[in-house]
Amino acid sequence: VRLNGHAPAVLWYTGLSGSGKSTIANAVDRKLFERGCHTYLLDGDNVRHGLNKDLGFDDASRMENIRRITEVAKLFTDAGLIVGTAFISPFIADREQARAIAGAHFIEVFVDTPLEICEQRDPKGLYKKARAGDIPHFTGISSPYEAPKNAEIHLKTAEMSVEAAAEQVVAYLIQNHKLGSE
Amino acid sequence: VRLNGHAPAVLWYTGLSGSGKSTIANAVDRKLFERGCHTYLLDGDNVRHGLNKDLGFDDASRMENIRRITEVAKLFTDAGLIVGTAFISPFIADREQARAIAGAHFIEVFVDTPLEICEQRDPKGLYKKARAGDIPHFTGISSPYEAPKNAEIHLKTAEMSVEAAAEQVVAYLIQNHKLGSE
Repeated sequence: VRLNGHAPAVLWYTGLSGSGKSTIANAVDRKLFERGCHTYLLDGDNVRHGLNKDLGFDDASRMENIRRITEVAKLFTDAGLIVGTAFISPFIADREQARAIAGAHFIEVFVDTPLEICEQRDPKGLYKKARAGDIPHFTGISSPYEAPKNAEIHLKTAEMSVEAAAEQVVAYLIQNHKLGSE
Repeated sequence: VRLNGHAPAVLWYTGLSGSGKSTIANAVDRKLFERGCHTYLLDGDNVRHGLNKDLGFDDASRMENIRRITEVAKLFTDAGLIVGTAFISPFIADREQARAIAGAHFIEVFVDTPLEICEQRDPKGLYKKARAGDIPHFTGISSPYEAPKNAEIHLKTAEMSVEAAAEQVVAYLIQNHKLGSE
């Protein structure tokens, strides 16, 4: 592994549950690691049970959840890392707040997987529960997903492999001078 | 700069206002950087105005302040960094909670500067204001500082230079296999 220079960045993955945010984010991180980049991924596993374990799922908590994630992402960019955040983050207002806080480092990555495909996959059985009415305010079923209008990176995952999606993210970083081109 | 291996760690600096926590932490970070370590310092400047800007100074807020700092420090160690935290953190219970959350990575660094010296320095004029009664619950004046009883690193700053204090921290990290010995 050789160390290339890289600029700090926030890769803000947004998309439906089951859209492949974490899968793609991990594939991107592997590629960046191979290039000698220092990366970190914030997701439900390491945030919800730690920093944000005091938060519920009401509107105020949802906003505070995103706010804290953004502030932590900002600290990671301040430390020089490329940090990914993999959360549904369905509301434009929340993502715009994140963009405002993170500043020039913010890169919105729309993991655009059609609802039908996400529901077909249903890796955690959540859509089934949501359809049965067992999960209130489930994004895509009983709560809206506000798709990004001008995401820096738009991944049409129905037409591409995880590998190709990850390549598209890396290509964006190179084109926008966040990474050396090797 | 060559890259030595290093283990993740939380250097939890605690001590009175004006004791030299940030100064020493920055000196340590410079030495670690020269050794190729990736470090980051959490302090009032980057935490109070961002992640914790919603918190006041009552007891519950104080505890939540320390809890969030600890959770963020834990994320940084998960990313492989040596992270410093420079906060007065005057209460043993709060620091023990931090130790419990951060686990084996936690290293308490007692910046042991006598109150008289801190008050003499008074870089921000806070002691003067506290003596005048303009700042309630000021640590060392109107609120207790509970000194660590078993800090991993005890810096008696009245007897040593900043440089020597930083050396003591680095020596501890080497002795405890957090750093290679060059």
